[in-house]
Amino acid sequence: MADNFEKKEIIKKSQNLSDWYTDVILKAKLADYAPVKGCMVIRPYGYALWEGIQKYLDVLIKERGVENAYFPLFIPEKFLQKEKEHVKGFAPEAAVVTIGGGEELAEKLIVRPTSETIMYEMYKQWTQSWRDLPVLINQWCNVVRWEKRTYLFLRTSEFLWQEGHCAHTNSEENTEMVLWALGAYQKTYQDLLALYGISGVKSEAEKFAGASKTYTYEMLMPDGKALQGATSHDLGQNFAKVFDWTVLGENGEKLYPWQNSWGLSTRSIGGLIMVHGDDDGLMMPPKIAPIKLVINPILGGQEAEIIALAQEIKREIEAKQSSDYPGKVEIWGSGAIAEKTFGWRMSEAELKGVPLTIALGKKEVAGTTPITIIPRLKEIGRQETGVEMVSKIIEQMLTKIQKQMLEKHKAFTEANTHEVDSYKEFREVMENKRGFIKAHWCENALCERKIKEETKATCRCRPLNDRESEGRCIYCGQKAQYRWIFAQAY
Amino acid sequence: MADNFEKKEIIKKSQNLSDWYTDVILKAKLADYAPVKGCMVIRPYGYALWEGIQKYLDVLIKERGVENAYFPLFIPEKFLQKEKEHVKGFAPEAAVVTIGGGEELAEKLIVRPTSETIMYEMYKQWTQSWRDLPVLINQWCNVVRWEKRTYLFLRTSEFLWQEGHCAHTNSEENTEMVLWALGAYQKTYQDLLALYGISGVKSEAEKFAGASKTYTYEMLMPDGKALQGATSHDLGQNFAKVFDWTVLGENGEKLYPWQNSWGLSTRSIGGLIMVHGDDDGLMMPPKIAPIKLVINPILGGQEAEIIALAQEIKREIEAKQSSDYPGKVEIWGSGAIAEKTFGWRMSEAELKGVPLTIALGKKEVAGTTPITIIPRLKEIGRQETGVEMVSKIIEQMLTKIQKQMLEKHKAFTEANTHEVDSYKEFREVMENKRGFIKAHWCENALCERKIKEETKATCRCRPLNDRESEGRCIYCGQKAQYRWIFAQAY
Repeated sequence: MADNFEKKEIIKKSQNLSDWYTDVILKAKLADYAPVKGCMVIRPYGYALWEGIQKYLDVLIKERGVENAYFPLFIPEKFLQKEKEHVKGFAPEAAVVTIGGGEELAEKLIVRPTSETIMYEMYKQWTQSWRDLPVLINQWCNVVRWEKRTYLFLRTSEFLWQEGHCAHTNSEENTEMVLWALGAYQKTYQDLLALYGISGVKSEAEKFAGASKTYTYEMLMPDGKALQGATSHDLGQNFAKVFDWTVLGENGEKLYPWQNSWGLSTRSIGGLIMVHGDDDGLMMPPKIAPIKLVINPILGGQEAEIIALAQEIKREIEAKQSSDYPGKVEIWGSGAIAEKTFGWRMSEAELKGVPLTIALGKKEVAGTTPITIIPRLKEIGRQETGVEMVSKIIEQMLTKIQKQMLEKHKAFTEANTHEVDSYKEFREVMENKRGFIKAHWCENALCERKIKEETKATCRCRPLNDRESEGRCIYCGQKAQYRWIFAQAY
Repeated sequence: MADNFEKKEIIKKSQNLSDWYTDVILKAKLADYAPVKGCMVIRPYGYALWEGIQKYLDVLIKERGVENAYFPLFIPEKFLQKEKEHVKGFAPEAAVVTIGGGEELAEKLIVRPTSETIMYEMYKQWTQSWRDLPVLINQWCNVVRWEKRTYLFLRTSEFLWQEGHCAHTNSEENTEMVLWALGAYQKTYQDLLALYGISGVKSEAEKFAGASKTYTYEMLMPDGKALQGATSHDLGQNFAKVFDWTVLGENGEKLYPWQNSWGLSTRSIGGLIMVHGDDDGLMMPPKIAPIKLVINPILGGQEAEIIALAQEIKREIEAKQSSDYPGKVEIWGSGAIAEKTFGWRMSEAELKGVPLTIALGKKEVAGTTPITIIPRLKEIGRQETGVEMVSKIIEQMLTKIQKQMLEKHKAFTEANTHEVDSYKEFREVMENKRGFIKAHWCENALCERKIKEETKATCRCRPLNDRESEGRCIYCGQKAQYRWIFAQAY
């Protein structure tokens, strides 16, 4: 049955990843191009993914004692200019408000590209002594970094994100927080989104504009390019110093607070789409799937009985479902969708990446055929059951799928990670198969730049889990302490 | 004990409402002035209120089948200009982006003041036939309407809100949705925020720019001025027509969809603060209170035992609490707050409007004094209990407080609603006590304008629950069908 769908025509992922990506986003109604250059519209099915990410990550954030707040969208130009590296990084992509309430503004306002400057100005006002630290604040908001070309979810002028901004009395506590945030991102990606990746530290050239150190979660996409999943920045005392923010220390000294900032954006949805889907469409990890199960009735006889059985199954599942899989159970037997053929509906559920589908007809009503649960991830196999066990079986299948999807991506990443010891080999990998390259690098910015110019590969990170391993820089041959990960990046 | 606090100095509400309002917002750390003119920062304690409102209203929205989505922040100038009344209403308050990515933009972008125009452009693209309707979409976002002077929560250049935008095949279904939204707002205000108000329809002059009809929830503030709590607009086919949006109707005809939009903003928090507080500070309705109970230990002897008892109480409550009161239980016996005196802490809990407080000392540990639960709303009286009953008593007290707070505001509103039958009386009320005035009005815009010029009172609404009652217009003496509510507005 599942083999005879009238498929919605979509471009094949196996043939052209980039075209498939856009096609599946538009056809599954995750998002659309906005009439404003560089901007996108996140449609309900795509926004439900963001709501799932928010819900999951917000719990982790609050458990850590970080509270949500909201700071203004507009940042006075002079604020952005306070930190030299910071303004260099963000000014070129700024959207600038020059008119407000019908009048030319005396001071131009930047639509926030990130909120360090406006937040720290307030932190300075709110704190007098070490007792007022730590400041532990996060905000969920929109930010703008001008783009001329839209790449849905991955590169848009406006995107949604959370930005955590904390301040501490000492460096140790600050570092702890930076690494905690990185860990929370890793957990969100691996546990919720089933996306494997490498937690590491950025090179000097690739770190955040204004940071002492930037940590990152880097994932490998099916085309062998890297996607930066989220970053956590150790800002040291840099911003405190340029903002001249001091508090009274425990021993009466002037103390510049140690700061960190960390963010995860709607870009994460881009990774989710790109990694998990296949030629038939999206594939949603069960924990984030807006719809976890579609019950698709075969209409055209005994409809009332078939729908009644569908409702019984739905009730059974909803009564016993765990909070791990909050997605909806939908019966596609009424309204506009019931006008479509059974086959169209089956392929629509595939396109949308719904983890499980049940096709329901006369035989299931008669009890001559058991209820068959069809997984979107084919390799875990269909399962047959009666109504009384349906909830349990579904829970088991969802758990298996979630685990399997992460393992698949991990296996893919490992299979496409190449330890390389000569620049010739490095270039060959980049020209042919791409992927993550692990190579020794002397940490000299010149080598890093040359490698990028000659191969398109940028330094993604040094994996935190790796031990020191002496070797020779792939480019210049000088001594090198670590293998770093290089890849072409999105 | 409760009478001997060292109070944080706050301005008295009974003496100057407006100064008290700002003072209490700043001192309880709900919000602060931003370094950008007209903007505010919502601090964690204030943002928790918005999170509570979001959570409550979002459930209602989703139950109605409306889905969340996200549309761009920027609206091309020409979009706003499509609907004549709409642009007239919003252009004067626009923040305009003229530079993007370092270049002067060919077309200026308006930072959204509301999203009708950008959303409906997309709806038009997404729908071909009556089967694609209804479109039921909501978004939670920030909007900007330029203001020169900030009035925290009540009038700021940027604010947060939700905006629901639905489209239907016919007028009846459209009206149903408009009234559903109004009902959801009334429920949110009354059930969650304990704010009584009048649901009514706006006059032609006061309706939304571009709407056929605007419905509103109007509340009376302690100074006798009205606050508009939320609005729901029946847009008729106005926007569909100016956007030339048609779909194929059921009988093959060209159909202009019927539309509605509805919004509730962070302004609601302004009403919450203003109505419920008193000379001692804020007063949070239990259902929205970020902290529902403070356990305040008397430190200075047997501290370990006192803290242990506090923790036992906390555990007991958290184990049994209902989802109606999701606020935290906090023990103010460690960290920075423990450095403050007991009295300071008691008055801090009052300032923050925490519904319940327990002061805990040696006597409670010894069991010679029962645990005493002190309500912020004094008239419901303290209650004594042992640990085993503490959860139940607290739940009962919270329920009683929630109910009482709404009843108080209702009683205040009714006591300050004046049925008036002469313009002389009308002016006297406006000059002396203000409040809601219920008066006959002929529905002629000229009378409405004259009344406003001469008394500052604007037409707030015609209450939906009122029957027709013939009379003479308070201003011109012509026949009038209804009593309308007039008041000076925020």
